[in-house]
Amino acid sequence: MVLLETFMRYPLGFFSFGRNIGIKDNTLDFSVIYSENVCQAAAVFTRNNYPGAPIIVGRDHIQDGLLQAIVINSKNSNVATGEQGVRNSYQICEEVAKSLSIKTTDVLPSSTGVIGVPLPMEKILSACKDAKQYLKPGNLEEVAEAIMTTDTRKKIAYREITKDRETGVIFGMAKGAGMIEPNMATMLSYILSDYLPESGDLKGLLRKAVDRSYNCITIDSDTSTSDTVVLMCSGILGTLPDEVFYRHLESIAIELSKKIARDGEGATKLLELTVKGARDDSQATKIGKSILNSPLIKTAIYGGDPNWGRFVMAVGKVFDEPIPYDKLFIYLGGIPVKAADTITKQKIAEYLKKEEEIVITVELGSGNTEKTFWSCDLTEGYIKENAYYTT
Amino acid sequence: MVLLETFMRYPLGFFSFGRNIGIKDNTLDFSVIYSENVCQAAAVFTRNNYPGAPIIVGRDHIQDGLLQAIVINSKNSNVATGEQGVRNSYQICEEVAKSLSIKTTDVLPSSTGVIGVPLPMEKILSACKDAKQYLKPGNLEEVAEAIMTTDTRKKIAYREITKDRETGVIFGMAKGAGMIEPNMATMLSYILSDYLPESGDLKGLLRKAVDRSYNCITIDSDTSTSDTVVLMCSGILGTLPDEVFYRHLESIAIELSKKIARDGEGATKLLELTVKGARDDSQATKIGKSILNSPLIKTAIYGGDPNWGRFVMAVGKVFDEPIPYDKLFIYLGGIPVKAADTITKQKIAEYLKKEEEIVITVELGSGNTEKTFWSCDLTEGYIKENAYYTT
Repeated sequence: MVLLETFMRYPLGFFSFGRNIGIKDNTLDFSVIYSENVCQAAAVFTRNNYPGAPIIVGRDHIQDGLLQAIVINSKNSNVATGEQGVRNSYQICEEVAKSLSIKTTDVLPSSTGVIGVPLPMEKILSACKDAKQYLKPGNLEEVAEAIMTTDTRKKIAYREITKDRETGVIFGMAKGAGMIEPNMATMLSYILSDYLPESGDLKGLLRKAVDRSYNCITIDSDTSTSDTVVLMCSGILGTLPDEVFYRHLESIAIELSKKIARDGEGATKLLELTVKGARDDSQATKIGKSILNSPLIKTAIYGGDPNWGRFVMAVGKVFDEPIPYDKLFIYLGGIPVKAADTITKQKIAEYLKKEEEIVITVELGSGNTEKTFWSCDLTEGYIKENAYYTT
Repeated sequence: MVLLETFMRYPLGFFSFGRNIGIKDNTLDFSVIYSENVCQAAAVFTRNNYPGAPIIVGRDHIQDGLLQAIVINSKNSNVATGEQGVRNSYQICEEVAKSLSIKTTDVLPSSTGVIGVPLPMEKILSACKDAKQYLKPGNLEEVAEAIMTTDTRKKIAYREITKDRETGVIFGMAKGAGMIEPNMATMLSYILSDYLPESGDLKGLLRKAVDRSYNCITIDSDTSTSDTVVLMCSGILGTLPDEVFYRHLESIAIELSKKIARDGEGATKLLELTVKGARDDSQATKIGKSILNSPLIKTAIYGGDPNWGRFVMAVGKVFDEPIPYDKLFIYLGGIPVKAADTITKQKIAEYLKKEEEIVITVELGSGNTEKTFWSCDLTEGYIKENAYYTT
């Protein structure tokens, strides 16, 4: 880890910190990301009908497409906290803006943690006032740690891109381990760059990348009230062609999404499902999600049980997308599973038990669309983690 | 149990047995229900797009609205077994019909258990040939036991109805503990009577009862490929007014559905959710199912964690049914949970820990529709049961 941190390259002009202010325990729970320049920015938020207070404020502040700072606390989501919760989020932005001498509307707030409990405002406002003095250049892996809740590890993905002999970075981080089936958005993820896409269409590029990454993962089919992805580009190093920028952006978003799925609460395995031969994106998504949300499939993979009939069941329960049985093909680690004999079943069981990344392919024979989805297995660890979360 | 069996009243004219024929282990795995008279009958089957072979044959045989026998095996579902599977189910009906000297098309077959494994036809055909000699009058609780797979207990519900000094019975049984979110149908359930509804509309009455009972339960959101409910009426005791017949039929179907939910794999608690103030049945169902399929709610209830924010999340993730937050009310055991203070949370935790039947009420303020749903909590037991099911 020391080596990694030594050589980690940050986008120019960004400063940050993560620290403990005692919201719940003694782990890092408060962080700020700050850019010297006002950044062009875009964000995608949860589609849950009860968005958290920070989402309401974030939607307001992102409207003009500009941001200069992000302020984040973990251990408390500031969701279902009424009008006072929204006022609290505005006040947090104000105090951070004052400390950093920037505009309040250029601060985006995020909170993650328990729902329905008022924020400990005294502690948080005091930390906001001190924001400036804690900032260090780069330092983003500290933020990646401070935004964790039930995550077991930091989730970082970045790409270095050299242009005109200068090397810039697109740097992403994320958190999320439960209440994860993002829809048009995701948990918390921040992607920062010293480049700008030529077209300036950050929103379009971000939305497209989100649809191919965060929106393709599910841990437990539950959609959080706090999902947020933010893209901030300082443009200090100028622009990149949209296709180059997008290729790296999507690649980072997929890497972070896989890290989230792999670190799902209680997970022992990453599941990567590719749906091939779908009629369109909608059909691929319905069937992909039906498979990866099936507790019977997720427990069978956990147990290394070659119970392939459960895949048939999960495809078949998408009532409005009937796939003729003879057109349906299912592969586990490349092994065809339909009507598997005893020896094949043993091979499948060995594959499931041995590998930490389980590759599933389902062919529908309905068209030419292909889409990949990620999830994790379902274990006793998930139950333990969630049965006693607040108590 | 001896007392119960002594006084259990069966509908007239029905004979049955359950026995072990060694399909998997030494528990009861094969049973036949037979009526002296040809019965008027109706059935509702799974909506899964890959129905088991017995469903295909059952749909064929129920077409004329007449049945005289049901033949059931557990431990193997005869699903995803191709054309041979369908031929096997037809042959099973033929052999049973021969033994009982009845029409093959008056026999409905059912199978439940592992998917994708050919039936052990030698054992089963031999048992079909011997069917007649094993039959005993009534004896239906033996069938209720023989149809069990991961169920921990028999599920029986019956009502005695006296008319013109004679007492008849509507007698129901069911099995089901996993892969349970029936849709337009359910696991295996057989309801028998010596009465007939006046109108003779068995199909309409059964469908209505199923929509208010089996279709309102979910254990794990997975829809089986074998779901079947059959109603058989010998009419030996004449007819009952439709409303009387229906009232008892629905009451039995609900009682069996609750027993299925309570006996969900690994379950420690029955959850009963009533959605009030819904705009219509569709809105109530979407929100009801979203709540009862949320693993975060089911684990919180298991752990006695008063994590009410998860209910807000689950209502809010029904994207196309936004409910204004101030119109939404949530009660656990009658205690309002929104913005609960510390003392209220303690009360909720005590309630969740103490009771085995958890009563949840959610008010939407959108209309006058009320609908009740049932499920169970999610525990390590579910994981254990399903991680190693076939191995």
